[in-house]
Amino acid sequence: MKNKNENFDILVSSVRRYINTGAKTRLWNFLSKLRAEDIAYIFDRLVFENKEILFDLLKTKDIEKLATVLSEIDTEDAVKLLKNLEPKEISLILNKFSSDDAVDLLSHFPEDIKEKIIKCMSKEESEDVKELLQYEEDTAGRMMSTDFYALEENTRISDAVAAIQLAADVEIPFYLYVVDENNRLTGVVSLKKLLLFPPSTKLKDIMLKDPIFVKTDTDQEQVAKKVARYNLVAIPVVDDELHLVGVITVDDVLDIINEEATEDIYKMAGVVSGERIQDPLPESLKKRLPWLLLALLTTFFSAIVITMFEGVIKDVIVLAALMPLVAALGGVAGNQTNAVVVRELSIADFDWKIGKRLLIKHSFLGLLLGIIVGTFGAIFIDLAYKLLGKPIEPITLLIFGLGISINIINGLLMGTIIPMSFKVSGIDPALSSNMFVSMFTDTFGFFIFLQLAKAFYHV
Amino acid sequence: MKNKNENFDILVSSVRRYINTGAKTRLWNFLSKLRAEDIAYIFDRLVFENKEILFDLLKTKDIEKLATVLSEIDTEDAVKLLKNLEPKEISLILNKFSSDDAVDLLSHFPEDIKEKIIKCMSKEESEDVKELLQYEEDTAGRMMSTDFYALEENTRISDAVAAIQLAADVEIPFYLYVVDENNRLTGVVSLKKLLLFPPSTKLKDIMLKDPIFVKTDTDQEQVAKKVARYNLVAIPVVDDELHLVGVITVDDVLDIINEEATEDIYKMAGVVSGERIQDPLPESLKKRLPWLLLALLTTFFSAIVITMFEGVIKDVIVLAALMPLVAALGGVAGNQTNAVVVRELSIADFDWKIGKRLLIKHSFLGLLLGIIVGTFGAIFIDLAYKLLGKPIEPITLLIFGLGISINIINGLLMGTIIPMSFKVSGIDPALSSNMFVSMFTDTFGFFIFLQLAKAFYHV
Repeated sequence: MKNKNENFDILVSSVRRYINTGAKTRLWNFLSKLRAEDIAYIFDRLVFENKEILFDLLKTKDIEKLATVLSEIDTEDAVKLLKNLEPKEISLILNKFSSDDAVDLLSHFPEDIKEKIIKCMSKEESEDVKELLQYEEDTAGRMMSTDFYALEENTRISDAVAAIQLAADVEIPFYLYVVDENNRLTGVVSLKKLLLFPPSTKLKDIMLKDPIFVKTDTDQEQVAKKVARYNLVAIPVVDDELHLVGVITVDDVLDIINEEATEDIYKMAGVVSGERIQDPLPESLKKRLPWLLLALLTTFFSAIVITMFEGVIKDVIVLAALMPLVAALGGVAGNQTNAVVVRELSIADFDWKIGKRLLIKHSFLGLLLGIIVGTFGAIFIDLAYKLLGKPIEPITLLIFGLGISINIINGLLMGTIIPMSFKVSGIDPALSSNMFVSMFTDTFGFFIFLQLAKAFYHV
Repeated sequence: MKNKNENFDILVSSVRRYINTGAKTRLWNFLSKLRAEDIAYIFDRLVFENKEILFDLLKTKDIEKLATVLSEIDTEDAVKLLKNLEPKEISLILNKFSSDDAVDLLSHFPEDIKEKIIKCMSKEESEDVKELLQYEEDTAGRMMSTDFYALEENTRISDAVAAIQLAADVEIPFYLYVVDENNRLTGVVSLKKLLLFPPSTKLKDIMLKDPIFVKTDTDQEQVAKKVARYNLVAIPVVDDELHLVGVITVDDVLDIINEEATEDIYKMAGVVSGERIQDPLPESLKKRLPWLLLALLTTFFSAIVITMFEGVIKDVIVLAALMPLVAALGGVAGNQTNAVVVRELSIADFDWKIGKRLLIKHSFLGLLLGIIVGTFGAIFIDLAYKLLGKPIEPITLLIFGLGISINIINGLLMGTIIPMSFKVSGIDPALSSNMFVSMFTDTFGFFIFLQLAKAFYHV
């Protein structure tokens, strides 16, 4: 047995070759031996025209496999491919989806087409889909599966096993959920326990009471945190009256964690979330341009500040060369701090005491870093410019070192205050991106440095 | 039933109050009602002296719970708390750990103390620990659990169930792994299947053949990717001869995904990975200072470039105000690109074809973004400075627009080339942090803008 999954580069290029040479029969022979997840992986690495070819082939050959592939690939691609089909055809494919994945795709269609597709779907699937669509996007209700095992507390193990055997096609249940006579969640039993106790044992006697759960309106990030914290493989979802209405499995949680981490990274770098390298040019342009124009506005403040000090720069021209260093060092210090604070806020909830302690700590840290880097910076620049044959006046070096120190303190404070105030105001702290922190450290850095210079030189 | 997990702020402040008032009995009454995972959550939010108090209390009251808490909290804290104890005492606590978590902690101890602790551990646990310690850090071998279910292919369901009943204390197995007579992995059976087929059925007839697996030396990031791709809750680990040696469960994978995402974010912002907001001041200082000093070096190149053009800046002083904009916009464009490319490279493997296509796409995208932002920037600055009563010469505006355009193209190319060359050279692309990209966009941005100005003005 060799590990088929090791060398995906070869798989991807084989598929490309078959497509380019039009060898559809061989392509299908090749694909039919692969897992749907592997096809999905290859799929994501093809150009869009090749994706269309693969999509058409799977549609005629194995609609079940196509459904799995579509639920694993990039959602935007799946929607684009499906949009070319008639609602009837789309519904046939979506019937094979798990209801949460179907809803995820459907939410990308315009209202009228969505209605049409749902009307064409099988009765059972359309009911599930309609139920999930009631809930807000990014909540537990939207991502839960309505296929789950729930049995009444007084059920005996023997009857539970019989029930599982009857419903063999329901998604693999790792846990069996136990409810009272009113369908309210009261416990959970692992499948293993069914094997450990005598068949006549009642579920309520072996169940784990007080199970961890989430509500239908719980945010998906909170769901992910809970599953991770309690090391679960599935978490039950209840409504306001604690009725069990669905289950979320850990594979969906993994997807969310990856998604949220990507979003954080993107937001911090000032990219609209969701940009993929496969995006066509106009889409990437649309996603990046707004941030660049915003950057133009924020950097404009620096220009204004510098213009205010044209006189002293003209007199001491070396200030022009040194001022970007003061601004940049404050920016680096601010962005380091911002990264630590944003990440911490995304893992934990905000807490005023931690906030206050952090601010105090960062003030001291800023002072220390400022003094060290400022002193080192002044010495370094002194030596470097002496070597260049353009020695700098001691007073300028002093201003330079002081400017760096103050701006580094500023960076640490901004990197702490900005994400915390975002969090408190209910804005995602990841949006306190490098750009915002840099705007403050740049503007203030130029200002403090040039103001110091003006004060010393133009007395 | 109320959801105990909703309001952690209250739990944390209750614990703080009990500790501050020295009410240890009430503190223990309170803690004994909480899950170990919740105690771990509270733990991470306390100052270190309070952590010590909680640690001592748990050690005397419930060593089992203490073990679970220690395996869930920040590793550095756990090590610091344990270091105050004698090797004998440490080994008693570690005996209650799962072997992979024990190894994780042990690897933070100096070699001689590690040996002593292992010697004091129970025979079974110390053997498991020694086995795992053979493998490199951050590999599947290190993180796998050696408690798992493996049965021979010809075992009948009835015997499999009996075996599970006998080994009731082994970690919850979601799957049963099937091996041939040489202990080589050949298949996997879900627990549910044991319930669906007659007791006399052989495992080889119901098992899923050709199971997904990883090798002991597979990198933990690859393990996480595989588990996510195939939607698994556990993955078997084999040695070079395909003998089954361990199992990795999805809860460890969740931790890794979170850890790697945090690392990526930190590296991109230029913070040594692993900084936590609870770190004491000297530790944070040590982690951040090197990057700031590196930033001093990289920004120094900008200063040199500017010094080269002192003449033209003195003549056209508005250049001093405009040059940071040219540099900053290139930086923003570069960092956007870098974030997209780094994230993509961390999800997928590198592929030359995608690399080439990306470079072509980003050249065009850079050209478009450059022209749009450059034009818009020149118009905006023209209007803004007219309003300030300091109109700028048309030729300067042209140089400004051109400079922005060229530096944005530069940003997109650097944001693509730097992380790709890191990946190809085997360096983590996340290290191609904002700092490196900014160094190139700053230096080049100042150079191209001032060179253009010099060419136009000093002809």
